Amino acid sequence: MANNTMKEIAEVLLDAQSVLIFPHINMDGDAVGSSVALCRQLRKLGKDCWILAEDAMPGNLVFIGQGYFTEDHELIKNADVSVCVDCGAFSRFPARKEKFLEGKKTVCIDHHQTTEEFCDYNYVDPMAAATGELIWTLLKEMGAEADAEIGQAIFAAIATDTGNFQYSNTTKNCHLIMAELYDWGVDTNKASVEIYENERLEKLQITVKALNTLEILGDNISKAAVAHITLADMDACGAEPAETDGVIDKLRSIRGVEYAAFLKEKEPGVIRVSMRAKRRGNVAEIASKYDGGGHIKAAGCTLYMSMEEALAVIKKELEAAAAAL
Amino acid sequence: MANNTMKEIAEVLLDAQSVLIFPHINMDGDAVGSSVALCRQLRKLGKDCWILAEDAMPGNLVFIGQGYFTEDHELIKNADVSVCVDCGAFSRFPARKEKFLEGKKTVCIDHHQTTEEFCDYNYVDPMAAATGELIWTLLKEMGAEADAEIGQAIFAAIATDTGNFQYSNTTKNCHLIMAELYDWGVDTNKASVEIYENERLEKLQITVKALNTLEILGDNISKAAVAHITLADMDACGAEPAETDGVIDKLRSIRGVEYAAFLKEKEPGVIRVSMRAKRRGNVAEIASKYDGGGHIKAAGCTLYMSMEEALAVIKKELEAAAAAL
Repeated sequence: MANNTMKEIAEVLLDAQSVLIFPHINMDGDAVGSSVALCRQLRKLGKDCWILAEDAMPGNLVFIGQGYFTEDHELIKNADVSVCVDCGAFSRFPARKEKFLEGKKTVCIDHHQTTEEFCDYNYVDPMAAATGELIWTLLKEMGAEADAEIGQAIFAAIATDTGNFQYSNTTKNCHLIMAELYDWGVDTNKASVEIYENERLEKLQITVKALNTLEILGDNISKAAVAHITLADMDACGAEPAETDGVIDKLRSIRGVEYAAFLKEKEPGVIRVSMRAKRRGNVAEIASKYDGGGHIKAAGCTLYMSMEEALAVIKKELEAAAAAL
Repeated sequence: MANNTMKEIAEVLLDAQSVLIFPHINMDGDAVGSSVALCRQLRKLGKDCWILAEDAMPGNLVFIGQGYFTEDHELIKNADVSVCVDCGAFSRFPARKEKFLEGKKTVCIDHHQTTEEFCDYNYVDPMAAATGELIWTLLKEMGAEADAEIGQAIFAAIATDTGNFQYSNTTKNCHLIMAELYDWGVDTNKASVEIYENERLEKLQITVKALNTLEILGDNISKAAVAHITLADMDACGAEPAETDGVIDKLRSIRGVEYAAFLKEKEPGVIRVSMRAKRRGNVAEIASKYDGGGHIKAAGCTLYMSMEEALAVIKKELEAAAAAL
């Protein structure tokens, strides 16, 4: 797919009087941060601009987004430009498709892999660590000057999508942008506290409950870690479904563990299994035996049996896999 | 205290034939990374150079340090230069004081607050996020060229001491150094996996045990979180003393928590209290009431009483402090 230039996209936006921005559903730091940075700059230039959402912002990102988000489709009608940010398919903003197409021109700015030319103007770079990086380039093209609030949004976008500069998508450019954000007056520590020191008590409690079930299998050379959680546990903690997401990474981070599995009761007799391999293992192979799928290092499947039976199945698989390494 | 220039210190090292490097006890990422970066560069220049330790390296840092560390005092006798790195007092390397003073010249490179001129040559900058930043400047002064292994050590030093660029000590310069490390060929993701996905099982277990004791005090506006661990818990888990270090940060990261305290039984009747404030609180004030000290947001004290009594004292303090916010 041939990208437009950032200059072309900047001109489209500079020519507009009204702009609606569309982040993806299940908004994350990159979706929120990128949208806010762009929205604020367009407003500074005198444009009528809103971010149109169809679901709630995660609580830890509210500090960035206040005053920029709306779910009201009537605020801007027939926008001069609709921009989708950090997403490249209607399935990523399903309830806003018609509204998006109402825009006289459409623009896509994204760093996910996409296959189709989706909008009138497109800038898609899968090598970018975060869409926030692309928005940064766009803002520069639009003549943006130092602004702590925009900078904070860009920080949130890049820091969260790179796992605080730990993931393999992190690049030299990410750090060069961060360095410049200090000149923009961003208090990165304050933003980090808001983003990361803002964990629901229920999430911590369900995580601890899961880790209390930890079992280590295998020998001294390569180990497997298994933990599980039941519906009754979720109820007891008042935890939301997504709040067990971090458990599997905790299991994988244990020294010597090459395989990790986290089993979660979705309904009675339905057990969702998430698996990870650290360096040498392949969990996609195991998942595929049970009609599941995924990647070599991260895969999953669903077992239709009791938790006790599912634990027996998975422990046998991981024990064998660890022994074979 | 007047620092020497980095140029002066570089010259002292370039003139030397043998150099011994002294990191502090309870080595962390900055101590190990800074020492290794300096040691490798000096060896590349043909110097006889070792890092002299008096305790074991944390397991997750072994990948950086292999081949550079020794506990053998006989390897280098009467070194031309002794350099203490990331520490500025003999209490930080007590069993190596005599050996350090055996050096014909002594150098201190550190970013901690110090009050005395400690060595023949000193470079102490409390504004540096990590001693690794200072070593980076020193290496440049010595003419160091791109080297992935040195780069990896500098990455480990700065990334760990800034909490992956989240803490308030993080500066523009940290990110500029990181950006340059990409040109040096450092695989930051690989290093991050080694450093962070390498947690001793015993550490996870003692952390879970501590979090199982979690109590939340206060009202809906500002809360306090308290957890504790006993000597019997430490024994049961086989945990090392430093392996409870992360607990207090987990407590502080709970949404709504403004004060956190972690109580640890050091010996029967001796309770070490670590305290944190998130945004508005001041724990130094509380600590000082019990002959402790520290910073506004991070302080501690020791209580000479039973765990039960200590918990009562601290819970009363934090409840009052949270209510006053």
